[in-house]
Amino acid sequence: MKAYPSETIIRLASYLKVLNRLEKDKQVVSSFELAQFLKINPNQVRKDLSYFGRFGRRGKGYRVGDLIENIKNILGINRNWCVGLCGWGNLGKALSSYKGFSQQGFMIKVIFEKDPKKLGKKISGIEICGIEDLGKKVKKYSIEIVILAVPQEEAQKMAEKFYQAGIRAILNFAPTNLILPSDCLVRNVDMSSELSYLSYYLTHR
Amino acid sequence: MKAYPSETIIRLASYLKVLNRLEKDKQVVSSFELAQFLKINPNQVRKDLSYFGRFGRRGKGYRVGDLIENIKNILGINRNWCVGLCGWGNLGKALSSYKGFSQQGFMIKVIFEKDPKKLGKKISGIEICGIEDLGKKVKKYSIEIVILAVPQEEAQKMAEKFYQAGIRAILNFAPTNLILPSDCLVRNVDMSSELSYLSYYLTHR
Repeated sequence: MKAYPSETIIRLASYLKVLNRLEKDKQVVSSFELAQFLKINPNQVRKDLSYFGRFGRRGKGYRVGDLIENIKNILGINRNWCVGLCGWGNLGKALSSYKGFSQQGFMIKVIFEKDPKKLGKKISGIEICGIEDLGKKVKKYSIEIVILAVPQEEAQKMAEKFYQAGIRAILNFAPTNLILPSDCLVRNVDMSSELSYLSYYLTHR
Repeated sequence: MKAYPSETIIRLASYLKVLNRLEKDKQVVSSFELAQFLKINPNQVRKDLSYFGRFGRRGKGYRVGDLIENIKNILGINRNWCVGLCGWGNLGKALSSYKGFSQQGFMIKVIFEKDPKKLGKKISGIEICGIEDLGKKVKKYSIEIVILAVPQEEAQKMAEKFYQAGIRAILNFAPTNLILPSDCLVRNVDMSSELSYLSYYLTHR
């Protein structure tokens, strides 16, 4: 895998969101317009896209439909992904009904929970399983990505179980750094760091 | 406000988390060690910190306690912040019990919700208010930061109400770009973009 800046990959996902919204009304979009939506510099847009090929024509901008397809191909979301959600507390419940996931092809196929009282139910047709037969269920539902929405003190242990079950991509909501072998990618949704950015802004503005 | 890269500010918050964990066992830490925890290049650590002064000594590393204090000062979290949470659905409930916020001094002081059935209660001593007297409550509780955990279609309207009430810093969980005057900083917690990063990784590894 070529190492592009992680910020570039995240911005591609943001461009895609803007493009999806523009698609109804526009056929062509300039790097300047894309940049305005995201409050970044147009050069950044051009640089990010240029890593992956030549999608626009100088002075003409990008064709919206083509750029959507290209970014989807790059991000690997030109297909659906089978996702496992681990943790059926408030956060898990919130994430299971979060539209942004399925809209982008991330389909939650199974929920893992260790509290026996919560097991056996189905939520919108999705099975809630215990963690004992985690490996079997990962296989059964062809899970490739796991969303970890468990308490901080359980995150590392659960992450290791999923790694053993063959999972190599984890979205972690617990406020802790997971330590896993280097062939497993962990992305942290770091909510308190984002708040720190706001306090930084209010302090120094 | 000097314009440092936003990624630098977010990384400062990550350094702080690592440092808080190391503080018990270590007095001094090197940029190499910090970098290892975050899986980044040590040069990045040195560059990020150098924007704000000279905290370490060449070949000696950084004093953990001092660096914690310095980063807290930079991020403005050497004090507590009064935070309003808007939206008392599953996500709101999850966020209200998220330890990472209060640990860093972000104290949820009031909850806003438009569903009349949910009003009037107190949750761990925190009042759930309607959105009619939002301005009054923002003043009463000295709210400076708002966490927006409402459905996508309500996010823009609510953000505008808070702007009118004097709020200039919003953490937005709705999968939509808020459009507000430029003196209001919005940070988006973009959960589906992080998933796209994982699918990108699985596709190209």
